[in-house]
Amino acid sequence: MSAQQWAVKASETILARCDELAGLTSMEHGIERDYLSPQMAQAYRLVADWMHQGGMSTHIDQAGNLVGRLEGREPGLPALVLGSHLDSVPDAGKYDGILGVIIAVSVATHLHDTGISDTLPFAIEVLGFGDEEGARFGATLLGSYAFGGGWRDEWLDRRDAHGVTMRQAFRDFGLDPDNVHEAARKREDYIGYLEFHIEQGPILEQRDRALSSVTSIAAASRYMVTVRGRSCHIATPYDLRHDALTAAAQIIEAVDAISQEEGTRANVGEISALPGGVNVIAGEATFSLDVRAADNALRDKVFERIWQAADTIAADRHVSVTHTRIHTADAVRCDPTLRGCIEQGIEQAEGREAFGLVSYPGHDGMAVANLLPIAMLYVRCKGGISHSPLESVRADDVAYGADAFEHAVLNVAQAIQDGSIVMPTHEREEVLA
Amino acid sequence: MSAQQWAVKASETILARCDELAGLTSMEHGIERDYLSPQMAQAYRLVADWMHQGGMSTHIDQAGNLVGRLEGREPGLPALVLGSHLDSVPDAGKYDGILGVIIAVSVATHLHDTGISDTLPFAIEVLGFGDEEGARFGATLLGSYAFGGGWRDEWLDRRDAHGVTMRQAFRDFGLDPDNVHEAARKREDYIGYLEFHIEQGPILEQRDRALSSVTSIAAASRYMVTVRGRSCHIATPYDLRHDALTAAAQIIEAVDAISQEEGTRANVGEISALPGGVNVIAGEATFSLDVRAADNALRDKVFERIWQAADTIAADRHVSVTHTRIHTADAVRCDPTLRGCIEQGIEQAEGREAFGLVSYPGHDGMAVANLLPIAMLYVRCKGGISHSPLESVRADDVAYGADAFEHAVLNVAQAIQDGSIVMPTHEREEVLA
Repeated sequence: MSAQQWAVKASETILARCDELAGLTSMEHGIERDYLSPQMAQAYRLVADWMHQGGMSTHIDQAGNLVGRLEGREPGLPALVLGSHLDSVPDAGKYDGILGVIIAVSVATHLHDTGISDTLPFAIEVLGFGDEEGARFGATLLGSYAFGGGWRDEWLDRRDAHGVTMRQAFRDFGLDPDNVHEAARKREDYIGYLEFHIEQGPILEQRDRALSSVTSIAAASRYMVTVRGRSCHIATPYDLRHDALTAAAQIIEAVDAISQEEGTRANVGEISALPGGVNVIAGEATFSLDVRAADNALRDKVFERIWQAADTIAADRHVSVTHTRIHTADAVRCDPTLRGCIEQGIEQAEGREAFGLVSYPGHDGMAVANLLPIAMLYVRCKGGISHSPLESVRADDVAYGADAFEHAVLNVAQAIQDGSIVMPTHEREEVLA
Repeated sequence: MSAQQWAVKASETILARCDELAGLTSMEHGIERDYLSPQMAQAYRLVADWMHQGGMSTHIDQAGNLVGRLEGREPGLPALVLGSHLDSVPDAGKYDGILGVIIAVSVATHLHDTGISDTLPFAIEVLGFGDEEGARFGATLLGSYAFGGGWRDEWLDRRDAHGVTMRQAFRDFGLDPDNVHEAARKREDYIGYLEFHIEQGPILEQRDRALSSVTSIAAASRYMVTVRGRSCHIATPYDLRHDALTAAAQIIEAVDAISQEEGTRANVGEISALPGGVNVIAGEATFSLDVRAADNALRDKVFERIWQAADTIAADRHVSVTHTRIHTADAVRCDPTLRGCIEQGIEQAEGREAFGLVSYPGHDGMAVANLLPIAMLYVRCKGGISHSPLESVRADDVAYGADAFEHAVLNVAQAIQDGSIVMPTHEREEVLA
């Protein structure tokens, strides 16, 4: 069986496994799988089974990430990480994050079954991160920040929509929140990080291509914005109103207009108004704001423009407006050598020249980049649609993707042999003696 | 003790009782008392105690309204109703509705204690309606529609925010929902309806006056508006988005602009977006819309203009927009004779010429007007603010108001004696035989 034939067969398994995971959801109709939830525990048991079938040992780390480890030519070698996330947004599709974990399991399984892993100068660790989307606690990349050493203890006090603190959620999941820092990996135990992900954009489809690398991940900032006015009766004349919701509506329009003008991406996806009566002018309105741009400076400029507009609107409408930044991530450049391994893998699989795209969506790689060099492989998704039940990938694209991703792993091994990737040095040098 | 002196003393009792009722709330901080709620049952027990002290017999009718009855010069005479409501919006003030019921109890009590009621050609019924605001089930004036014969059985299938049907809420309150129509009164048992209410607007304050009558209650329509787009990832370029929440924001701005242009009142007080992810373009947004105007034609014109704007916005943003009308009330003209009794009462209490205002807020009188002639007495409230914890009335205004309201009752008796109000004819003529 040639590499391409195994990948065609693997793509069937991969898509069937994504379907099976879609059934582990907290929504009655639709997919939602939150960090540290019972549905996530079920998903881990299922994916761990698949990892065991592929020759991997498994464990759940202290931050609630699933780990499957395949040893290389000797046990205990530094590892190449193939990772993505297993959580989802509310009413999600089947592939965002999940496809990257499942394809990594299939690639590792194939390397094990063919005996190739026994020749590799590194171990492979498949990482299924527990939180990337931030749907449950409003802060994102929790699993990968813990992995990369960027965990912040104040996150433990956050509460979900049911009032459960993250600290309690850890305990409910069988983890000790006081041990979360033990999830931070040591640099010397790892070579680098490769992530396979759906594009979540329309450019591959527009170019009629299955795969690309990623050149960099866009800068992002997330805020909760609160407009405070004064609740009063609908009978109140307009010149005496302090209408928080109409002011919020104007700001939301400004977000859209400014981001379009600047060629960036922004979104207001959550909103609420208090006290929430049909005939009561809203005294308070709160909404989320997410801003993405190709570099940090442009992201900051867009937010400044939005904030200036918000201030003007607030003054006009006799309300006040405040914001809390709940997340920020600088733009992350992919490592040129690892990116080269991925582009070479794409060329080996597709027989066509590879190219790179900027990623507007954030990815676990942003948080892993605190610790390790990273690179990413993008696969086309239908209509560029993601974070929607309409998320869709082509089986032949998945087959090319699996083939390219395996080639990328082997290209890393070659790069180590060539000396273009240097194995990490172990601090405890006596081990080498 | 002159009439004015009793009213000054009564105003202390009235305000203390409003304070005491404010403690019967479902909110931890703030006032909310819903139709058929445990807090309403507590309020009824308290107000019924006050009614008993004032010589009234009490019962709760089959629609969950509280009734206190003071007989006239003989038992069983047709009644003059003094009514308002005891439910509240969320995070309410202490006086909207409540003050009207409590002042009616005090007036009836004073008429009883002075023996004047024993000379009256009618009974007095103080009505504490169970629902005017519609906070719990989204449809308003439920108590007064039941009283006036306008009850609609499909309301029983409505659910509150916890999923409890109105039918179940009736049972939980100790009522049989199948008997609700028994709350509909017979025309021949009543003379008319007078309601005392805070202005919920700033005009009395601007004119430096304590009291006015009401000429008519404005036309109102309430809707739930749903915008449907498609949820997708924030990475989606703008030309591929179907952003329901940004479209909703534009419509909310249009509501504000159009209503201001037309000199009417409108409000969007409730909003939600689905699926509700920070980084997910909203696929659906739903908001409430309330439109008030001095007459029916103007109200309908404003809604038509809003809807045209919504259609245009929806087309521009590649979303669809639908609405459901959840409430409509035609403008109601106050009865000239009863209004005259109130204006004469204001002049007797204040010694100044009385005048009338259009009421933009809806009132129980709108639903009672299906059955009976109605009139209203307005009292100044601070800053025109209502539906807010900042709702405030002056003690001296309440004293003038109680005095004027008692005078209005006596003026109705005089009008009956003069023949300008004709006592209702009993259908069962044999009773007269």
